[in-house]
Amino acid sequence: MPSKSPRRQLVASILGAALVLAAGQLPALSAEPFSAEPWRETAEKLVARARADRLAWARLAELTDTFGHRLAGSAALEAAFAWARARMQEDGLENVRLEPVMVPRWVRGRESAALVEPFPGELAMLGLGDSVGTGPEGITAEVLVVRSFEDLEARAELAKGRIVFFDVPFTSYGETVRYRGRGASAAARHGARAVLIRSVGPMGLRTPHTGGLRYEEGAPRIPAAALAVEDAQRLRRIHERGQRIVLRLSMEAQLHPDVASANLVAEIRGRERPDEIVLLGGHFDSWDVGTGAMDDGGGCAVTWEALRLVKALGLRPRRTLRVVLFTNEENGLRGGLAYRDAHAGSAANHVLALESDNGAFKPTGFDFTGSDAARAQVAAIARLLEPIGAGAVGPGGGGADIGPIALLGNIPTMSPQTENDAYFLYHHTPADTLERLDPAHVTDLAAAIAVMAYVVADLPARLGE
Amino acid sequence: MPSKSPRRQLVASILGAALVLAAGQLPALSAEPFSAEPWRETAEKLVARARADRLAWARLAELTDTFGHRLAGSAALEAAFAWARARMQEDGLENVRLEPVMVPRWVRGRESAALVEPFPGELAMLGLGDSVGTGPEGITAEVLVVRSFEDLEARAELAKGRIVFFDVPFTSYGETVRYRGRGASAAARHGARAVLIRSVGPMGLRTPHTGGLRYEEGAPRIPAAALAVEDAQRLRRIHERGQRIVLRLSMEAQLHPDVASANLVAEIRGRERPDEIVLLGGHFDSWDVGTGAMDDGGGCAVTWEALRLVKALGLRPRRTLRVVLFTNEENGLRGGLAYRDAHAGSAANHVLALESDNGAFKPTGFDFTGSDAARAQVAAIARLLEPIGAGAVGPGGGGADIGPIALLGNIPTMSPQTENDAYFLYHHTPADTLERLDPAHVTDLAAAIAVMAYVVADLPARLGE
Repeated sequence: MPSKSPRRQLVASILGAALVLAAGQLPALSAEPFSAEPWRETAEKLVARARADRLAWARLAELTDTFGHRLAGSAALEAAFAWARARMQEDGLENVRLEPVMVPRWVRGRESAALVEPFPGELAMLGLGDSVGTGPEGITAEVLVVRSFEDLEARAELAKGRIVFFDVPFTSYGETVRYRGRGASAAARHGARAVLIRSVGPMGLRTPHTGGLRYEEGAPRIPAAALAVEDAQRLRRIHERGQRIVLRLSMEAQLHPDVASANLVAEIRGRERPDEIVLLGGHFDSWDVGTGAMDDGGGCAVTWEALRLVKALGLRPRRTLRVVLFTNEENGLRGGLAYRDAHAGSAANHVLALESDNGAFKPTGFDFTGSDAARAQVAAIARLLEPIGAGAVGPGGGGADIGPIALLGNIPTMSPQTENDAYFLYHHTPADTLERLDPAHVTDLAAAIAVMAYVVADLPARLGE
Repeated sequence: MPSKSPRRQLVASILGAALVLAAGQLPALSAEPFSAEPWRETAEKLVARARADRLAWARLAELTDTFGHRLAGSAALEAAFAWARARMQEDGLENVRLEPVMVPRWVRGRESAALVEPFPGELAMLGLGDSVGTGPEGITAEVLVVRSFEDLEARAELAKGRIVFFDVPFTSYGETVRYRGRGASAAARHGARAVLIRSVGPMGLRTPHTGGLRYEEGAPRIPAAALAVEDAQRLRRIHERGQRIVLRLSMEAQLHPDVASANLVAEIRGRERPDEIVLLGGHFDSWDVGTGAMDDGGGCAVTWEALRLVKALGLRPRRTLRVVLFTNEENGLRGGLAYRDAHAGSAANHVLALESDNGAFKPTGFDFTGSDAARAQVAAIARLLEPIGAGAVGPGGGGADIGPIALLGNIPTMSPQTENDAYFLYHHTPADTLERLDPAHVTDLAAAIAVMAYVVADLPARLGE
């Protein structure tokens, strides 16, 4: 985000300091760098209350235990929204409401992949989200093993009538997720009947990873699925022995017409500038495997808890704190787009947008995208979190759901920085369950977000000004 | 195993030494403790050859990649036996033969467990081996959560008509496998309709563990399945919130009439005492999940490789080396029992029985059950393996398949000692695949077994005499 002009910063700073004095707060008008020390006692209270209650953890457990996974268009997601709405009202949050969003309804159905040659046997697989099905007879075809898009192009004439298997070892998500996204269309253009990919993730315990694909215009829509790393390596070794591989893929997957869903919104209205908004959130939907505890039940639990903690302590910041639990991040981003459209008129009134969608692991700080001036303030606020180890501020904050409104409103964006090295071990797998997260870490992450959000909302001048 | 009398040991020692001299070997007649130094050069050659060829690994890969899992009664097991027999003949092993064994044929079929209350959703489960099915309509019932057999007895009147869930946290295999074995009958005696257990293993990645159960006489046979640890903990938490749990269990499992299988036997006949046998082996069958690479494809690969290495170096020990790849260890032990019955007449001619069924991990030595005199010799031989880190000798060697013949013939028993701390993470799960083992470790384990078996078979006097 571009920074404001120095002159405007100075004016804002003086104005802000004046407002601070007017409100009887401690910060004095001076040329000193911004200090968040006036909020230290409040920060300590927020952390203490989070640790005493552990409510983010308890609610994440109840959410994921009761409703399980929550794919857009599922009854579970809507039941979970109703449950969360009622709890938010019990918390005393304000303007609790479901903002309507139409979402796709993709239903996996039964699915399997099985070797036919060299010898019959089941493989561990998950169909890719939004894939078409195979039809009830399945697809039985010889497998063409390729290592990359370039390798496919070099042997394109062999793809016709085959199942193309993109056997691409996991390096980084950014590098390898391309095969999940574009593999089906790339192979379909050469006449392939179906596509398999090596799961986009490190070696697990025979753990396949699902995730969305994107069919491109002009390419036939063919079924696509991911194999567990072990099964991918098995096919690789069979292939390297010079043996022919024939495989049967069977998928009932089907995309149904859009259905009604919603973003769940709740607020603590600001005491001075209620129209200025600090936006927090995560996405409430998940893939249809696991219980979506990490991706992204945890992000919803900690951002929601941030508001609850502020409310529980009887605090009311200058600006409005708003939490949004978005729908349909995983296979459509309809929630983030709908939020932008519904709030386009107030986009520029968003002071900060924070999304927690990288796993509710041990917090170490925040990643931030915004002006240098804003970054300096964020860094000062983060120092309040050094006692819990969450004082770092790095670059590159953001999130998929907050992206559309941030782009429209030119809003600074932020995401928690956590010890999330294991994230892609669990990502989009049946193993994304509550056990992947630690109660103490979820608790501290909620506290850290509460402190950051509260202070930003309570700043005398708007963040960065 | 009881040790021989001191007098008999002395006589045997003198006789053995005389034979050594007659054969022109190095060991001299003396009162010195037994030394295996005369075999050091041979040991080094066996290790070097194993490391040069890495054939145990290559064959384990081909076996598990090609045929996958190999439950008794399956086409895969019999095809794998035919493959291994042909390879053993190519190796130049002697008396390669399939010794017939009738085995049970249990077929899992489709199966599922799903929450009905508090909210519908699938659970990660595996039916227990030899379980009966539920019938096509499944079993839908309220769940009674118990912590132990004692807890069940204390609340026995609540079990009638319910699905009893033994939620017993994993401590050790010996402690918790009792619920897999006896849980179904214990609950059935109180009128339960089905049984669930928490998987017998540590936390994995939503990884359920199968394994055999034993229906007891006089108790109705009810279906039984294991839940992944995460799913067990989910039910536990729902239960502790005071919510009613209703579950639907559906299992097509069926036990069919016995079918023909075999133990695969191959030998290197002894040059002086061919009727005395050093028996090595593992079990070739596996559970019907994963590819049975760890349990126990690896044990078969390394014991088979031990004979191949001896053959490849043109060695022929005094006594016969025999490898047996047993059938049906997992759900019947018919292979081990059939071996005992077929070889009852020569049971006492077995000098040593070694089974590798604890995972072909990095070898550290051997566990041994036998006389003190034999143990001293084994320890001396193991010192030849100190250069590869496999020089330790501990108590408690043995194996399920060699148990019956060892009991009948009063035979010393042995098993490799390995770094197998992760064994029960993979045991009886879909994650039991080649990736759990390391090529270098499998290679060294084969070498260690080759050295131990060769020297024991080549001793001037019978082991322990």
